[in-house]
Amino acid sequence: MFEALETGKHLTEEQFKAQRAELRPALLQAQFDLAGRDYPVLIVMGGFDGAGKGAVVHHLNEWMDPRLIETHALWMHSDEEESRPYFWRFWRRLPPRGRTGIMLGNWYQRAAYRAMAGRLDEDGFELAMRRAVAFERMLVDDGALVVKLWLHVSRDMQRRQLSYEAPRQHQNPRVPADPEAWWISREAARGEAQQNVASLPADPEEWWARYPRALEVSERLIRLTDSGEAPWHLIEADDSYYRDATAAGLLLKAMRNHKPANGGPASGDRDPPPDDPQPTILDAIDLSRRVPRDEYKPRLAKLQGRIQDLFWQAHRERRSLVAVFEGWDAAGKGSAIRRLTAAVDPRLYKLVQFAAPTDEERAQHYLWRFWRLLQRDGRATLFDRSWYGRVLVERVEELTPPATWRRAYSEINDFEAQLVEHGCIVAKFWLHISKDEQLKRFKDREAKAHKQHKITDEDWRNREQWDAYALAVEDMVANTSTSAAPWHLVAGNDKKAARLEILERLCEHFESHLGA
Amino acid sequence: MFEALETGKHLTEEQFKAQRAELRPALLQAQFDLAGRDYPVLIVMGGFDGAGKGAVVHHLNEWMDPRLIETHALWMHSDEEESRPYFWRFWRRLPPRGRTGIMLGNWYQRAAYRAMAGRLDEDGFELAMRRAVAFERMLVDDGALVVKLWLHVSRDMQRRQLSYEAPRQHQNPRVPADPEAWWISREAARGEAQQNVASLPADPEEWWARYPRALEVSERLIRLTDSGEAPWHLIEADDSYYRDATAAGLLLKAMRNHKPANGGPASGDRDPPPDDPQPTILDAIDLSRRVPRDEYKPRLAKLQGRIQDLFWQAHRERRSLVAVFEGWDAAGKGSAIRRLTAAVDPRLYKLVQFAAPTDEERAQHYLWRFWRLLQRDGRATLFDRSWYGRVLVERVEELTPPATWRRAYSEINDFEAQLVEHGCIVAKFWLHISKDEQLKRFKDREAKAHKQHKITDEDWRNREQWDAYALAVEDMVANTSTSAAPWHLVAGNDKKAARLEILERLCEHFESHLGA
Repeated sequence: MFEALETGKHLTEEQFKAQRAELRPALLQAQFDLAGRDYPVLIVMGGFDGAGKGAVVHHLNEWMDPRLIETHALWMHSDEEESRPYFWRFWRRLPPRGRTGIMLGNWYQRAAYRAMAGRLDEDGFELAMRRAVAFERMLVDDGALVVKLWLHVSRDMQRRQLSYEAPRQHQNPRVPADPEAWWISREAARGEAQQNVASLPADPEEWWARYPRALEVSERLIRLTDSGEAPWHLIEADDSYYRDATAAGLLLKAMRNHKPANGGPASGDRDPPPDDPQPTILDAIDLSRRVPRDEYKPRLAKLQGRIQDLFWQAHRERRSLVAVFEGWDAAGKGSAIRRLTAAVDPRLYKLVQFAAPTDEERAQHYLWRFWRLLQRDGRATLFDRSWYGRVLVERVEELTPPATWRRAYSEINDFEAQLVEHGCIVAKFWLHISKDEQLKRFKDREAKAHKQHKITDEDWRNREQWDAYALAVEDMVANTSTSAAPWHLVAGNDKKAARLEILERLCEHFESHLGA
Repeated sequence: MFEALETGKHLTEEQFKAQRAELRPALLQAQFDLAGRDYPVLIVMGGFDGAGKGAVVHHLNEWMDPRLIETHALWMHSDEEESRPYFWRFWRRLPPRGRTGIMLGNWYQRAAYRAMAGRLDEDGFELAMRRAVAFERMLVDDGALVVKLWLHVSRDMQRRQLSYEAPRQHQNPRVPADPEAWWISREAARGEAQQNVASLPADPEEWWARYPRALEVSERLIRLTDSGEAPWHLIEADDSYYRDATAAGLLLKAMRNHKPANGGPASGDRDPPPDDPQPTILDAIDLSRRVPRDEYKPRLAKLQGRIQDLFWQAHRERRSLVAVFEGWDAAGKGSAIRRLTAAVDPRLYKLVQFAAPTDEERAQHYLWRFWRLLQRDGRATLFDRSWYGRVLVERVEELTPPATWRRAYSEINDFEAQLVEHGCIVAKFWLHISKDEQLKRFKDREAKAHKQHKITDEDWRNREQWDAYALAVEDMVANTSTSAAPWHLVAGNDKKAARLEILERLCEHFESHLGA
């Protein structure tokens, strides 16, 4: 694979300057055009230590408008990052639509270093790579342009870059060793070593000795992560003029030719209501249960005590709770959540409420606004409405084309599986009431002055879509209730019973996941 | 996940008949329309044993035109299949464009059974699922419509289906047990047991006892393989009327709405030749080497003897050779291959030559014509031209849009990795000559009557594209030369030297992979 990248490609200084004179204004123009588009550009740098990734990034920043680019080094992982699921560190750095992000480190790196150090077997490495591809796929499906540049440097050149020595005899004596490159490598090695890959060498000579193994791992990496939607561009990097001009040229071409995958119009061909209405899972919920007034208070107090203890236990065990609350309008979500939070030390949780996304959020993949809010290990995140809006309101109100919300089931399942794999405890509640009960509560809200702010025209409009929502809830449960992250369907016609049931189910869910 | 699939959905006989009356002609029409389209429909049946997959397939065949559907059971694996890479059994059954194929067994099944039997860990299962997704992705990228139907049956119903007993009291007493379902399961169990999953039960009661474990595995299977381009449709299957009508309805809708992914026009924006031509990997080949006439014959004889032994050794070790020969027009591929085959017992190899694809081949994914020719373990397949046409002639002649041939690198790497993983030995040769040497040979062919059939206008046209081909060859080597399946670049200006070099490199490649 790499033999074709050691053919002596190079540019003279004059050739380089001529290309640069063309590339700079064109890149600036492409950046300017991008600012008006609804997709981001993500540049992923790959290649060996010492290949000049840092130098290329430096030049791109110099040639383009740095205010529209963010560069992320990603070689030191903060403890903030270590105490969240692996991909959180990448989500938090994704560029918004219209902007460019450069990833100097990436989602292949950890597995690659581990494989080089012999700490990850072939299947484990392949799995990590296939997960990385799935991540890129999700971004591309959302419209992103992902430009992956792989810089290949020969063994001799790597040794020179990794040492502080001035260049000796070389076929391209113009090329000075790039001190920054080695600096980054050394720091990267130190950063990785602190955290994951304790066996990586700190000495450039040792890096150099590992070159053959690095070739093997890199070849597999490229093979497994080269995809039609996000291909690797392989660049011969021994000559810095050729390397920089080629990288910039490839980026320019990719930016000019990009046709975002999400470009299709919202489909208007909505499914007609089925001819023969079928029972849904909501019909199976027993809404008749009532809790007598005198039972309620003592049971609530007891459950709240249990909850309080469990939150502290989770904190000690460094487990995070991710709890999702969804339900019909006026089902009593808010008041149920208040009975929960009343019991918990405010340092241990964050409650977040979702309405329409902000401009900043709209400029990102729809899951981004949830990733950014994840609390670190040992703290809970309570979501009052959540990512399920994608397959509920966005589906029913046709805010999102069918293919896009349909795809969200797998995106959501993948997201929650990452949470669970990291050690989070994921609990999801759907608060159900009957259509009649909702009508009663709506009228009550309209009648009482202090409740009028709680009822809007939108609520009435949503109510007209009751059957469509019921179908969407059923599909949601069918597609996203997993044993690791199950949906709890709670009967809400009696508010007291609903509050107790939510607390009780949450306690049980907690207890089944925490230590004895 | 499955709780939403046990809600008691059902149709009365009248409702069912009314739906059937609409569905039958509509499905026939959709089939008829499909016949004129350039993509296939692939129906993948998923779900537990006893869920009625066989019955659904039976009805689809009954309602549609069975001449345009092929159904594949895939529960008994032939020894033909066992001695080729795993996915060969699926490739050979893919429907051609314009036709429908139904897979009663599928590419999830083996891993699912193994996971249920506790013989595959979580990571291994996830890897198998992600490979399955990559396979479907490749078909979808090629335009295919993949319709995945998952039939869910409750535990009680499964027990009934898996036994021979007549239905007892049941919420849908209309539904008779389907003897065929159990028959298939039993045979499938036997087939699997013979080969891979010796611990699967043969008794229906034991199957039933495994229901909870099957639920767990199925949930993970669906989560990992549900994708935007090939989503699972989950169907409640306890009621056979509802099940059959829903499956047929989903299929009809999918067929009507399909927009093939390969629908884009061939892009005309070809890359201009680079301003500053750079050396390619072909320039590094030393074309000056000559072999003296008196050395040639004894060396050839010796190498042929060695090759003969190695082919027999490979046969004994049940290893297959997959050898690819590519090169410039008039580079001497044919005569080099003859020196190889002259040495080998004809029972041990198959030589296949490729020109433009046949109609039958054009109706399939471009890799299909190569998959179908793979010889079984212990036999060699020699490809005179190969799948690399995709990234050579199809690229240079603009027969294939850039995004499509670009994607082929990863498809080819994946294909060859599957060969290697199965135990094949993959060797690839590019026979290189200089542009001057080619001119000399072309003129020689024109001058000699018995060689005139070997030179056509097309050869001259190809020659005009020399630089574009050189670039394509370089990209091909950069993207597809892997340590497990390397490219050997052979100097061809001296025919004798080239023949010896090919045999010698093949011997070395063989020896490095066979037992001592």
